[in-house]
Amino acid sequence: MSDLILDMCRKAKQASYLLAQLSTETKNKALQHMADALEKNAKIIVEANKKDVEASRQKGTKEALVDRLLLNEKRIANMANCLREVALLPDPIGEIVKTWTRPNGLIIGQLRVPLGVVAVIYESRPDVTSDASGICLKSGNSVILRGGSEAINSNVAIGKVLAQAAVESGVPDGAIQVVPVTDRSAATQLMKMRDYVDVLIPRGGAELIKAVVENSKVPVIETGVGNCHIYVDNDADLTRAVDIVINAKCQRPGVCNAAEKLLVHRDVAEQFVPAIVKTLREHGVEVRGCEETRRIVADVVPATEEDWYTEYLDLIIGIKVVGELEEAITHINKYGTKHSEAILSSDFTKALAFIQRVDCAAVYWNASTRFTDGNQYGLGAEIGISTQKIHARGPMSVQHLTTVKYFCLGQGQIR
Amino acid sequence: MSDLILDMCRKAKQASYLLAQLSTETKNKALQHMADALEKNAKIIVEANKKDVEASRQKGTKEALVDRLLLNEKRIANMANCLREVALLPDPIGEIVKTWTRPNGLIIGQLRVPLGVVAVIYESRPDVTSDASGICLKSGNSVILRGGSEAINSNVAIGKVLAQAAVESGVPDGAIQVVPVTDRSAATQLMKMRDYVDVLIPRGGAELIKAVVENSKVPVIETGVGNCHIYVDNDADLTRAVDIVINAKCQRPGVCNAAEKLLVHRDVAEQFVPAIVKTLREHGVEVRGCEETRRIVADVVPATEEDWYTEYLDLIIGIKVVGELEEAITHINKYGTKHSEAILSSDFTKALAFIQRVDCAAVYWNASTRFTDGNQYGLGAEIGISTQKIHARGPMSVQHLTTVKYFCLGQGQIR
Repeated sequence: MSDLILDMCRKAKQASYLLAQLSTETKNKALQHMADALEKNAKIIVEANKKDVEASRQKGTKEALVDRLLLNEKRIANMANCLREVALLPDPIGEIVKTWTRPNGLIIGQLRVPLGVVAVIYESRPDVTSDASGICLKSGNSVILRGGSEAINSNVAIGKVLAQAAVESGVPDGAIQVVPVTDRSAATQLMKMRDYVDVLIPRGGAELIKAVVENSKVPVIETGVGNCHIYVDNDADLTRAVDIVINAKCQRPGVCNAAEKLLVHRDVAEQFVPAIVKTLREHGVEVRGCEETRRIVADVVPATEEDWYTEYLDLIIGIKVVGELEEAITHINKYGTKHSEAILSSDFTKALAFIQRVDCAAVYWNASTRFTDGNQYGLGAEIGISTQKIHARGPMSVQHLTTVKYFCLGQGQIR
Repeated sequence: MSDLILDMCRKAKQASYLLAQLSTETKNKALQHMADALEKNAKIIVEANKKDVEASRQKGTKEALVDRLLLNEKRIANMANCLREVALLPDPIGEIVKTWTRPNGLIIGQLRVPLGVVAVIYESRPDVTSDASGICLKSGNSVILRGGSEAINSNVAIGKVLAQAAVESGVPDGAIQVVPVTDRSAATQLMKMRDYVDVLIPRGGAELIKAVVENSKVPVIETGVGNCHIYVDNDADLTRAVDIVINAKCQRPGVCNAAEKLLVHRDVAEQFVPAIVKTLREHGVEVRGCEETRRIVADVVPATEEDWYTEYLDLIIGIKVVGELEEAITHINKYGTKHSEAILSSDFTKALAFIQRVDCAAVYWNASTRFTDGNQYGLGAEIGISTQKIHARGPMSVQHLTTVKYFCLGQGQIR
């Protein structure tokens, strides 16, 4: 095992030096060719995927989860189109970020370059294999993909098609590699490869992310857990507030930018809570509430302390009545996961205080938290949503898989 | 122990929320007052420092290292002036990095905010206590300072003076804290405080940095190990090359941006190697060389494989004759520590290839590697030199202790 991962890492590093020098044209042609190859080889990929789907059903996996795994020609065409969209994004590599001249004549500048080798540890959805390959190639990085055991056949098949198409287009061999085994030791080994892997991005559930964050010796970008709040202020437009809360909770409850908690200003609680509880229930949402919420709507399930920390990823919401903006901010900074938070209010001063003081990747004023997404922000395809503060915060696209190096042009300067 | 660190972390986090909202004026006045307080309390600090110096001498520490520890009124005045310089730097907090409008009318922007809580684990030099406090305060971050046992009395005395002066100027209590004990368990505890500490910066020798990088669960910015190379091309001005090599090696051999290795193009080796060996020896430098170097100057000590990896931090240099630019780049990317690397050549094409392809934080064309420094780059005081690729690379000043948050201004947008 240790040799397999080490060999893959060495190969990825070697490839990364060549990849960093590839022209935008070569990279874009490769992305187009990879997209075509996915579609041409759709049958082979679907065959491989069937093995994974059957194995999952035999293990008694819920159909909703089996569906996340399932590939068909239409979904493969979507993956291909994603690669074509990445080809259209601007190439961040080679940008001179800025330059300045020092009093001694030394010209200093910053040049944007790839990170080098990116490793992704992920679960379930085999489209991550294709999306991550595209984003890494466009940003000039080698990628090592370690998907979950449930999708191993699909991932290996997709990886083979992509890697071959890339090489045919002039991309160095080793730029795209799927780890062909699912032993846990492969992931553990990958997390130790500091000399070869420049950043590790975990994508998946809270447990996967925690395990990677706590065990990796390679720098990690933490992604995705979202215990997102909407605060309905006493100056909010309450009709609009219903629409926003329903959208943020119900439009796609299983994703990280869905709202999980609703904080309501005490002055409007008597009016707003009954209305929102009724509408949430019409949408099939289970409501859990604080004591005050339950005083207003008696049959609401009591929320426990645990509830305030929980990312449900389901049709469940927690409602808490708060005394003022200050209490809402304190609550969010205590229980939130630093993902996406919203204030609904017509008061600019309060909105500004909320924007400045809530500690999160994305903060909303009078809009749904569901917009935290690379495509929605106009950044293009994303490789994840960072919830940490260093390097990148929020949706990460090609430009976030780069770094800068200082260059200093001299005429013999010494100190 | 665990309670002490946990309490300090909680206090730092609380303070960070207030600190993020402080005006530039308050922060600058606090920095001025802290500078004055250091000078006013110089005697108290010198008294505390005497205990550390005496303890070090009793342990038989070399005088060169005792000198790194030693404080006197002049050095304290230097620390104070450093704080005054930080006060003059622009305040990065509150900057709107950019804004754009989406087709649905959502206005999206990025706001520059502090990281939150910065922890620094460092060795020896007590001036780090003051410099790091100043940089963190200016960038709106709380700081937890965990210095080495050899400087504990000095660090505690400096921390007390700074924290008191800061609070007197309106900075929240808990913004500047020195860990008052030196147990290893305090550092270990600090490395686990993911819920409170946003980034951990180790400053010190290679071993300290390795221990922090490998054990911390808090995101780390790796700093400072520099096995820096100078490549003398066959198109180099060889007279100027002697000056640059001598400066990079000898001007201050104990620091991370000093040159440790010299690579010489084969075509100029017969001419350049005897000249540079002679001059290096006149400056007291021990020369270790590859076989070819030793064929040219017979009495050069043979360099081992280990030598090519070593950061000497001493008057020692390794010389290797290489066949061409390609071999120089490959050698540096294999043995280097991604800190500072230089090419001396009059050929722009070769210089450009070196700049693009050498994997390091700072790359020089016809200048000494000794310039990799916040002040030399015009960035102001630095909290370290990052040799990793994520978040910041090269000298880190106040702007590198910040992050951005996305803000989205809506008029009721839903998906």
